[in-house]
Amino acid sequence: MSEMRIRPRQVLILIIVFLVVLLMVHRNCKSTCVTGPEYLQAMYVMQQNEELPKIYAITPTYARPQQKAELTRLSQIFMLVPNLHWIIVEDSNNSTQLVRNLLEKSGLTQRSSMLHIKTPAAFKLQNKDPNWIKPRGVEQRNLALNWLRTNVDPDKHSIVYFMDDDNAYSVELFVEMSKTKAGRVSIWPVGLVGGLMVEKPILNTDQTQVIGFNSAWRPERPFPIDMAAFAISIDLLFKFPQAVFSYEVQRGYQETEILRHLTTRQQLQPLANQCRDVLVWHTRTEKTKLTAEEALNKQGKRSDDGLEV
Amino acid sequence: MSEMRIRPRQVLILIIVFLVVLLMVHRNCKSTCVTGPEYLQAMYVMQQNEELPKIYAITPTYARPQQKAELTRLSQIFMLVPNLHWIIVEDSNNSTQLVRNLLEKSGLTQRSSMLHIKTPAAFKLQNKDPNWIKPRGVEQRNLALNWLRTNVDPDKHSIVYFMDDDNAYSVELFVEMSKTKAGRVSIWPVGLVGGLMVEKPILNTDQTQVIGFNSAWRPERPFPIDMAAFAISIDLLFKFPQAVFSYEVQRGYQETEILRHLTTRQQLQPLANQCRDVLVWHTRTEKTKLTAEEALNKQGKRSDDGLEV
Repeated sequence: MSEMRIRPRQVLILIIVFLVVLLMVHRNCKSTCVTGPEYLQAMYVMQQNEELPKIYAITPTYARPQQKAELTRLSQIFMLVPNLHWIIVEDSNNSTQLVRNLLEKSGLTQRSSMLHIKTPAAFKLQNKDPNWIKPRGVEQRNLALNWLRTNVDPDKHSIVYFMDDDNAYSVELFVEMSKTKAGRVSIWPVGLVGGLMVEKPILNTDQTQVIGFNSAWRPERPFPIDMAAFAISIDLLFKFPQAVFSYEVQRGYQETEILRHLTTRQQLQPLANQCRDVLVWHTRTEKTKLTAEEALNKQGKRSDDGLEV
Repeated sequence: MSEMRIRPRQVLILIIVFLVVLLMVHRNCKSTCVTGPEYLQAMYVMQQNEELPKIYAITPTYARPQQKAELTRLSQIFMLVPNLHWIIVEDSNNSTQLVRNLLEKSGLTQRSSMLHIKTPAAFKLQNKDPNWIKPRGVEQRNLALNWLRTNVDPDKHSIVYFMDDDNAYSVELFVEMSKTKAGRVSIWPVGLVGGLMVEKPILNTDQTQVIGFNSAWRPERPFPIDMAAFAISIDLLFKFPQAVFSYEVQRGYQETEILRHLTTRQQLQPLANQCRDVLVWHTRTEKTKLTAEEALNKQGKRSDDGLEV
């Protein structure tokens, strides 16, 4: 091979050019990232190092005027949190185009599973029933549990969370939830629930163990907490296949019904700054008044003709 | 300077090493980005090329049990959308620690402004008043308009949007809103408002001009639309300094009150797929029932002692 004379200075210039290009690419990249908080940035690094367990969020949902609004708000959490997989379980005989469109538009098709199962008519809320008269989402959550027990690798640590479609969630909740240890159920406070500003576990003096709860409503329940208050390490679902939800239990006992198989109070893993941070709120969205719409419908018209609301 | 003999092969190796490093940096970057939809990715590229106008979102807010939950949901939109600047205007005599903490924790301090002004007692809703009896946010929105007219560069194109703290927003709304042209007010449909599934502008046959609205409630209003239905190019605020909100107008006329100075119906710029996509919903969050909390308070206790809910 022929030899050319190349000056070291030329090599130096070459190196500088490359460094500049490197810097530009790097800067370019930065600007395409979320402008979010540090705890999220740290999460992306962990995700890339495969140090983050996957979180399966189970969302039972049903058709109603505000459904798309609610699911849209949730989808934005999924855009931000890298290790979330969304299991949407519709209360219907078929998967709907509304949910499919939403997942596609949000770029979440690969990170979600669409399931559906119709609640038996006997257990379905009637239009004027108060919403606590019959347990909701039993069928749907059980289908999702069954899906997890069939489709997820039992040997790979991952986490299961029940994520209702009208609560308000901070993305930081999912950072905390990612710390759920294998073989454990983790727990944290929930705001605006049970007639209180916050329902929370009470910890022992060294803040490591749950010794009680501050709940005011039915405090005699073994687990007097909301569905949004805990997450489950997936190995427990395989170890205790009998852990499911049930129509046969009293009002307010669904959480206890599943948790009694999986954990004791003492084994609960307190998260969210030793249960001092509130990162989820049991908000509820008002039923929309559609008086004018009903008047339109009587004339055979509708305001959302050709639109998806 | 001394000359060394360097073989072209060595230079080639150097180039390859650099290319590998470049690739690694680039890959690394990708994984720290949002896993969101394509329209967001496209936005980040535009932001970096300085092709995106800034959007000033004005959010009047007031202390109530569900305030932090609502603002937390909104903050997640700001984490995703790169060109949003958040003007939070509290209805209070001082900025609160709650809002300050929220902005800090969300990494939004640099991309937000905290303002505050107390609504005069005569105009404040009483606890049992229905929420439409007095106009809300007049004082707060006017303060924000004043701030914009004082602090923003009139010669740089930017956009103003009134973003209530309990509506539901798709991030895609902000992609659309970014298309608002200088000198124009842009407009799109709003879901779940005015007794209808969707209130929307009616366009002419070539879908370029607004010729009417489908509103059922007070359709005689010059602009029978919700506050969430439009965005304003900032130059209009400087051109028409008299455009503000007012306590002196009838219920439902706040939108008309400001828009009548800025635009005609014909000048409105239809966005959101020629007003066929619904990207914002006028959801309302239920007042939280705090019966157990009130009982606690009578004993001088509270569930959120030492916690921020």
